[in-house]
Amino acid sequence: MVAGNESSARDMAIKARAASRALQALPSADRVAILNRIADSLQAHEAQIMAENAIDVEAAQGKVSEALLQRLVLKPNKIAQLADGIRAIAKQEEPVGRLLSRLEVAEGLVLDKVTSPIGVLLIIFEARPDALPQIASLAIRSGNGLLLKGGKEATRSNALLHKLIVDAVAEVAPGVGRDLIGLVTSRDEIDQLLKLHDVIDLVIPRGSNQLVSYIQQHTKIPVLGHADGICHIYVDAAADMGKATRICVDAKVDYPAACNAVEKILVHDSLVGDKLDSLVKALQDAGVTLHGGERAAGALGLPTAPSARHEYSSLDATVELVSSLDEAINHIHNHGSGHTESIITEDQQAADDFLRRVDSACVFHNASTRFSDGYRFGLGAEVGISTARIHARGPVGVEGLLTTRYLMRGTGQTVEKDKAVAYTHRPLPLN
Amino acid sequence: MVAGNESSARDMAIKARAASRALQALPSADRVAILNRIADSLQAHEAQIMAENAIDVEAAQGKVSEALLQRLVLKPNKIAQLADGIRAIAKQEEPVGRLLSRLEVAEGLVLDKVTSPIGVLLIIFEARPDALPQIASLAIRSGNGLLLKGGKEATRSNALLHKLIVDAVAEVAPGVGRDLIGLVTSRDEIDQLLKLHDVIDLVIPRGSNQLVSYIQQHTKIPVLGHADGICHIYVDAAADMGKATRICVDAKVDYPAACNAVEKILVHDSLVGDKLDSLVKALQDAGVTLHGGERAAGALGLPTAPSARHEYSSLDATVELVSSLDEAINHIHNHGSGHTESIITEDQQAADDFLRRVDSACVFHNASTRFSDGYRFGLGAEVGISTARIHARGPVGVEGLLTTRYLMRGTGQTVEKDKAVAYTHRPLPLN
Repeated sequence: MVAGNESSARDMAIKARAASRALQALPSADRVAILNRIADSLQAHEAQIMAENAIDVEAAQGKVSEALLQRLVLKPNKIAQLADGIRAIAKQEEPVGRLLSRLEVAEGLVLDKVTSPIGVLLIIFEARPDALPQIASLAIRSGNGLLLKGGKEATRSNALLHKLIVDAVAEVAPGVGRDLIGLVTSRDEIDQLLKLHDVIDLVIPRGSNQLVSYIQQHTKIPVLGHADGICHIYVDAAADMGKATRICVDAKVDYPAACNAVEKILVHDSLVGDKLDSLVKALQDAGVTLHGGERAAGALGLPTAPSARHEYSSLDATVELVSSLDEAINHIHNHGSGHTESIITEDQQAADDFLRRVDSACVFHNASTRFSDGYRFGLGAEVGISTARIHARGPVGVEGLLTTRYLMRGTGQTVEKDKAVAYTHRPLPLN
Repeated sequence: MVAGNESSARDMAIKARAASRALQALPSADRVAILNRIADSLQAHEAQIMAENAIDVEAAQGKVSEALLQRLVLKPNKIAQLADGIRAIAKQEEPVGRLLSRLEVAEGLVLDKVTSPIGVLLIIFEARPDALPQIASLAIRSGNGLLLKGGKEATRSNALLHKLIVDAVAEVAPGVGRDLIGLVTSRDEIDQLLKLHDVIDLVIPRGSNQLVSYIQQHTKIPVLGHADGICHIYVDAAADMGKATRICVDAKVDYPAACNAVEKILVHDSLVGDKLDSLVKALQDAGVTLHGGERAAGALGLPTAPSARHEYSSLDATVELVSSLDEAINHIHNHGSGHTESIITEDQQAADDFLRRVDSACVFHNASTRFSDGYRFGLGAEVGISTARIHARGPVGVEGLLTTRYLMRGTGQTVEKDKAVAYTHRPLPLN
């Protein structure tokens, strides 16, 4: 379904929910069959997809940033990779209806808690046409309906990918139909979409910090994602400086624009001198431009950092001195974004304190912040990384597209002021 | 802390977060000790609490509804019950830092997912001064900070209860201090509070549908709760009419104003005649006033129901006829509130379909909707019942006050384009 004159985004959301309920009612094998059909269809239409993408890329030349252009291009082997990824999602354990707990409430009265689709998701993404089939496949696997809002620059790529996917759904499951996934094409509809909190359950933005931040500020729909990734590494007094150096360099240089790249390195002030000098030199040798926090700028002769809370997203980082673990933790709480922080130390007590007390989605000991990622966390596909404290936090896989339902099976039980049954509340095995 | 001229609600929220981090950093035994101190203090100050409550009740006479007045009164044995309830919460398994999963990411690199406090909760409640110590105890047990906004009618009761609780916190844990729980006293501050989405993580309203609905409409903070409880019972063609009758009567009569009371009884039209007549008579004999949906009003000579989606919260219910299980499920999806629905049938296939397909927080077979409750579900204390699809759904216990953090322990690992370690992604045992 594509939004046009005759169908508003609200209608699309309502129809997507009805279709998602039909999808949820299907046996697992049918949802798997839809995904395999999508994978086959993408490969069968590879030439057409590449042709549409080439037209998008051609039209965007000179009008968008080089970075955006890079993310718009589908590389030669991309369709095969996408199809393989979708087949891998199809092979994953069935996420819907998974039994989480089972309790005997009273004799003959059993309560199950099971996983269940959330309902209708809105995905807003920029460039990256390859994100469309990935996210659609995750939504289908988990029984959800979708509204997709892509960037104008990928219009033709998205339109064809969307068509192939809903065609596959309708062929394999006519009772679900094409309404399961709506494509919103008009450009200025984003504010309209963000008002639909009564018919959309979750928004997942995939794009720049500005996009995510705008969405968070302008909707009452829960948002899964993060605007900032201001990650810290704290190099403790008892750090192994070899580990500290390797980890700081990796955390910045491996992919400087990633949200899990380190932006600020806090260093215990007992390391000032040879130890800190060699860390600074290693970072500079790796191409990193260092800035100084209030204390470090003077002590190390570095240019002053733009602010105490700054995401460079480039080969830049801030160094700051702290006098204690407590000060490091407070600094992170005051200036961080709650994404990922790491302590480098050989002092087990300091590591344990840091891991227990730092109030971020991911807290590491002697490991690079770059590990904060759905693939590296073994989640299979990544839906996003959340710095919210509600619903899902940190790298989120398919479980972020699920909620739960309680199912109770009885034999005629009533409550009657809690006198009609004798509550046993006995946990039962899950199989 | 009490909001006055010098301290805004925003300051209170920021201070509550700092205090909650100190609370979270304490050993479990200290959080338990705080709760036991609160319980002791409530009992030691029973006479004063009852006296303050009597003044509130006296002042409210004739100014509030009889129902509200009933909920304002602390009954003679209530303080002892409250203290016992708090000691029971203290005895529960430690909710913070519970290990949910453990994964070997690579050799020497282990990823844990653990439970963690959400942060700062805002509880808005009407009357019911007994709700204050209950919810404060749950928050403390789970390491959260709190802002409390009580009704004007309970001002003196709430002020004393709040004072006793923060006194106990400060005595047992001076490093946490009184700022952990803020009491907002000014009446018209509610709209101010609802704007604090950057410093408050979750709102939990305890009160009327109007209150919950108002809050949902006026804030971007996630809301845990439900405005409507429009529960359905579907009496299938293959129902045991004895069970159907007992369950329908219980679901309405046991507590007609409860959110889990049945509001609409859908009856398969093959039961029209003696079977339905005897169900109708049993309900009427139990004091229920029946209204008819579009089809049933004519067929059964009942007054027409106010609407297809109506919560009576009284000894009234709507009866409607449907021709199939499909029609019953569609009716529930179109007119329900996603709270609790029950099917009465001896047809296992129909029961399975209903449980698999009905998209509500709680879906029952041959059991009264009144079982939809935290106590009956064995959750210990109940934070609320959620019809949202994000974070927590259905009756919510202390787990609704928790989120998760990922903790990773390494030995110096880096990512280096995913070539520095060999990913094993091997699940490890949880102990």
